[in-house]
Amino acid sequence: MQHQPWTTLSSQQVLDTPYLKIRREQTAVPNGPIIDDYYIIENFGWVGIVPFTEDGCFLLNRQYKHGIGLAVLEFPAGAIDPHEHEEPVLTAQRELMEETGYSAAPEDIEPLAHMYANPTGARTRIWWYLARNVRKTGEQKIDPVEVIENLLVTPKELLQMIHEGSFAVQGQVAAAYMAMERLGFLRTTF
Amino acid sequence: MQHQPWTTLSSQQVLDTPYLKIRREQTAVPNGPIIDDYYIIENFGWVGIVPFTEDGCFLLNRQYKHGIGLAVLEFPAGAIDPHEHEEPVLTAQRELMEETGYSAAPEDIEPLAHMYANPTGARTRIWWYLARNVRKTGEQKIDPVEVIENLLVTPKELLQMIHEGSFAVQGQVAAAYMAMERLGFLRTTF
Repeated sequence: MQHQPWTTLSSQQVLDTPYLKIRREQTAVPNGPIIDDYYIIENFGWVGIVPFTEDGCFLLNRQYKHGIGLAVLEFPAGAIDPHEHEEPVLTAQRELMEETGYSAAPEDIEPLAHMYANPTGARTRIWWYLARNVRKTGEQKIDPVEVIENLLVTPKELLQMIHEGSFAVQGQVAAAYMAMERLGFLRTTF
Repeated sequence: MQHQPWTTLSSQQVLDTPYLKIRREQTAVPNGPIIDDYYIIENFGWVGIVPFTEDGCFLLNRQYKHGIGLAVLEFPAGAIDPHEHEEPVLTAQRELMEETGYSAAPEDIEPLAHMYANPTGARTRIWWYLARNVRKTGEQKIDPVEVIENLLVTPKELLQMIHEGSFAVQGQVAAAYMAMERLGFLRTTF
């Protein structure tokens, strides 16, 4: 079966802000119609990091997020700064320090996954890293717009939070399982 | 630590289309600044369904998605129609039939997870279901805009696709792990 790319006939920027950029495309579907108004969220991407301590705990953030209007539990994550485009691991290290005051030795940080955020409506790509042996070596950046509470939880507690729905951001849940599997806390039965 | 909600001072619709609605808020951060331009993607939400056959396979879609510009592997999923707001399981059943021609008996469909898509920038909520004993009882809807190839994979193959990055949409990866755990294919070691 063919999965030919659609052809972009024209493109127009309909929102162009530092936080959100959206373009509208006129696009031709192979053997199908021309769609006059296909909206795509433009966004280079973001990076997340799963921090794991020497004594066996995951480090989480609790933070109010105004999009959903709730405080949510997440691993540190953030947008990629332009100078970090070639090396998303720099974003991971920066976000870990800014949001928690923790860091990890470079040799303790490994790629965990590369994912897509929303293939239908966005170009966004996501890079996840796993950081082992993280330690508090600095101070969280204090910013009233980002009031972040840090907490340490065991793998068992994290899995329970996922089952209860208190750790519930989709990409974060994916990263949590991949990290638990990589760290040997989940085994297949097949 | 306090995680007080921010206060919305004013709100303006900046994009209002059937596919994408965006509002800009002026919002006051508690003990912090007033943000003049906070953009929120408005979207009631979407539903995904993990279909599992009697003989032990997951049913997947391969489909070109123009946001990311690639063909991706996913479980059936789609937006909630207005009349389905109270019962997202109706969306799950509808999307399963439209995208695959498969269905499941109501007693074989169970809630799997409730998640948030993007808490920073969107209101979007996601409902996931697990459907056991799915069978082909109808025909996929044929639509040139949605050319969908269906494939059946074992749990082992699905996990391998996740590890390789060929099954890589963040919410889909989260649902895959939750379904594999629920079905007994993943066990904790703690």
